[in-house]
Amino acid sequence: MRAAVARAGRMVAADLPEPEPGDGHALVAVKACGICGSDLHTLRHAHHMLDVAEATGVGGAFDPELDYVMGHEYVAEVLELGPATDGVAIASGDLVVSIPVLIAGMELVPIGFSNDFAGGYAERMLLTAGACIPVPNGLDHRRAALTEPMAVGLHSVNKSGIKPGDAALVVGCGPIGLAIVVWLAAQGIEPIVASELSPRRRTLAAELGAHVVVDPREEPIFDAWRRVDGMRSVVVYEAVGVPGILDTVIFDAPSQARVLIAGVCMEPDTIRPLIGVVKEINLQFAFGYDPVEFAETLRAIAEGAIDVAPLITGRVGIDGVADAFDALADPEAHVKVLVEPDAPADLTPLGGTPPGH
Amino acid sequence: MRAAVARAGRMVAADLPEPEPGDGHALVAVKACGICGSDLHTLRHAHHMLDVAEATGVGGAFDPELDYVMGHEYVAEVLELGPATDGVAIASGDLVVSIPVLIAGMELVPIGFSNDFAGGYAERMLLTAGACIPVPNGLDHRRAALTEPMAVGLHSVNKSGIKPGDAALVVGCGPIGLAIVVWLAAQGIEPIVASELSPRRRTLAAELGAHVVVDPREEPIFDAWRRVDGMRSVVVYEAVGVPGILDTVIFDAPSQARVLIAGVCMEPDTIRPLIGVVKEINLQFAFGYDPVEFAETLRAIAEGAIDVAPLITGRVGIDGVADAFDALADPEAHVKVLVEPDAPADLTPLGGTPPGH
Repeated sequence: MRAAVARAGRMVAADLPEPEPGDGHALVAVKACGICGSDLHTLRHAHHMLDVAEATGVGGAFDPELDYVMGHEYVAEVLELGPATDGVAIASGDLVVSIPVLIAGMELVPIGFSNDFAGGYAERMLLTAGACIPVPNGLDHRRAALTEPMAVGLHSVNKSGIKPGDAALVVGCGPIGLAIVVWLAAQGIEPIVASELSPRRRTLAAELGAHVVVDPREEPIFDAWRRVDGMRSVVVYEAVGVPGILDTVIFDAPSQARVLIAGVCMEPDTIRPLIGVVKEINLQFAFGYDPVEFAETLRAIAEGAIDVAPLITGRVGIDGVADAFDALADPEAHVKVLVEPDAPADLTPLGGTPPGH
Repeated sequence: MRAAVARAGRMVAADLPEPEPGDGHALVAVKACGICGSDLHTLRHAHHMLDVAEATGVGGAFDPELDYVMGHEYVAEVLELGPATDGVAIASGDLVVSIPVLIAGMELVPIGFSNDFAGGYAERMLLTAGACIPVPNGLDHRRAALTEPMAVGLHSVNKSGIKPGDAALVVGCGPIGLAIVVWLAAQGIEPIVASELSPRRRTLAAELGAHVVVDPREEPIFDAWRRVDGMRSVVVYEAVGVPGILDTVIFDAPSQARVLIAGVCMEPDTIRPLIGVVKEINLQFAFGYDPVEFAETLRAIAEGAIDVAPLITGRVGIDGVADAFDALADPEAHVKVLVEPDAPADLTPLGGTPPGH
């Protein structure tokens, strides 16, 4: 099968052996798989993965120096159920999503970060049959593919402990920052103040529910918050994830601010603890989501409680994934690009609202 | 009057003009004033104060390049009430403590961090009469002088949100770490695991209520916690405050750990956010206490609910403050040294339990 392989720090298209379902597995045909910022990070910063593995055990069996197929934001059609799948709630032909964990024997494999099992940048892949959720309500495959990144946004909002009456400041409107804006708006939080360098993404943030959106080079986000509010308890969502941003937030935030760190900064970063101390800042790092949040996100998309279509800006075939990675370096060009194995190789814009499947 | 003055990064004894009480002030004679680690920090790291002032407004009117008299852990006898003090709850001859803030006209002056008003390393000083609390129960002046640092410990424990059933890990057993141990023990938290390089302070930590105390060079604190518990939710109290310790805690802590940052690291510090993200660490910076916590601390000491005597290891006259600052660089030599204006200059050990006043 065709797959986009991460090899020695670059994306290359290649032919791989067909995956063979083991106990508890579903063999599925990928219909779409979003390209995640963390995939771009992983390709660039593979050397930090060893640090993470040592500290956490996460990704311990994954060697980024060897070939791997990324892709953990997939939606797929079930082709075949493997052995030991009696009683699972899915059948051949179902369109499904799942949390990206493959149970392989006694091992939990993070899908998309494994040398042994392909992620969603491939024609076919293996999923844990018991973890698959059928896509309901005839929801199209493109919106369904946003379940995973939107679940990250929901988890960030949940983990922040924001309450009605608090103000929300979203620093950075990439896919995660925008997902956070969507969930904050769905919860009626006001004001939602967002900052972002890219005009296109600023427009999207406003469309998705931010009440005030600023270019931080023209008006710092905390100034914008003081202009429109300045009184409420502040929850800051840091969704940039580059060195220096954390220190800037700590320096600029009001006393007692809570900062939810959703941006994944792969490099060591420097802060001034004394500033944090005097203001009694709270920093909450957030990661992923739980299975309940994942299922809740799929339901919210399928029922129309949140609209993810504006986030989907392009699609690309497997042979074009390398180009799409390059294109995503420009925040003005795209927000979420979907890899669709049956699409032409070239990266093609989608008009915001994809057709039903 | 005689005072220990911070001048150009050094402590020098000098004669200063007598303070004159303004509206709302009490003129008091200092009986004892603890030397705080933050005073040692301030002397060494005055250049960072501008950063803090810019980010927070705290200390904005304070220029550490000019002379100042530190000392914010004082207990004092009221000599005279100034104008506009009708109805205050104190009278001449009362032994009092107060939160270290002087109301001077429209200004709030942080006592001990001002070029205009002397702190407690002086024979006499001005306090906000309405903020003074008489020391109750005939409590001796030495124990009463521990109100302020013990209030810092209480605030750290309160701010951490620790609950019965959680495990507490105290990293560093200086005065603040030990104060935290005292309050955790008073709240019945178990286990309390503490780490500290100095044998003397390890002995004190155990005496004050820590269940397990380790030398981190022999057994890392998280290993000690896993040995005796390993199951409970973990709250870590970082009470060291040197560069690198935060990253070590984040790297070693279990997933979902909450870290209360009570150590005041004056220098920029480097962390690896990715490790924090994957473990969803929470970092809560804490600073000071509120007036209710301050009063609660005095009451707890006066009623014998907590015992602070073991923390008091020496006293020194005003002319010996410079030597005491040097001595406090050795964690084995002392824990809390009290400046007593009527004591001989030489730093003298106190046997742990001071006599009544």
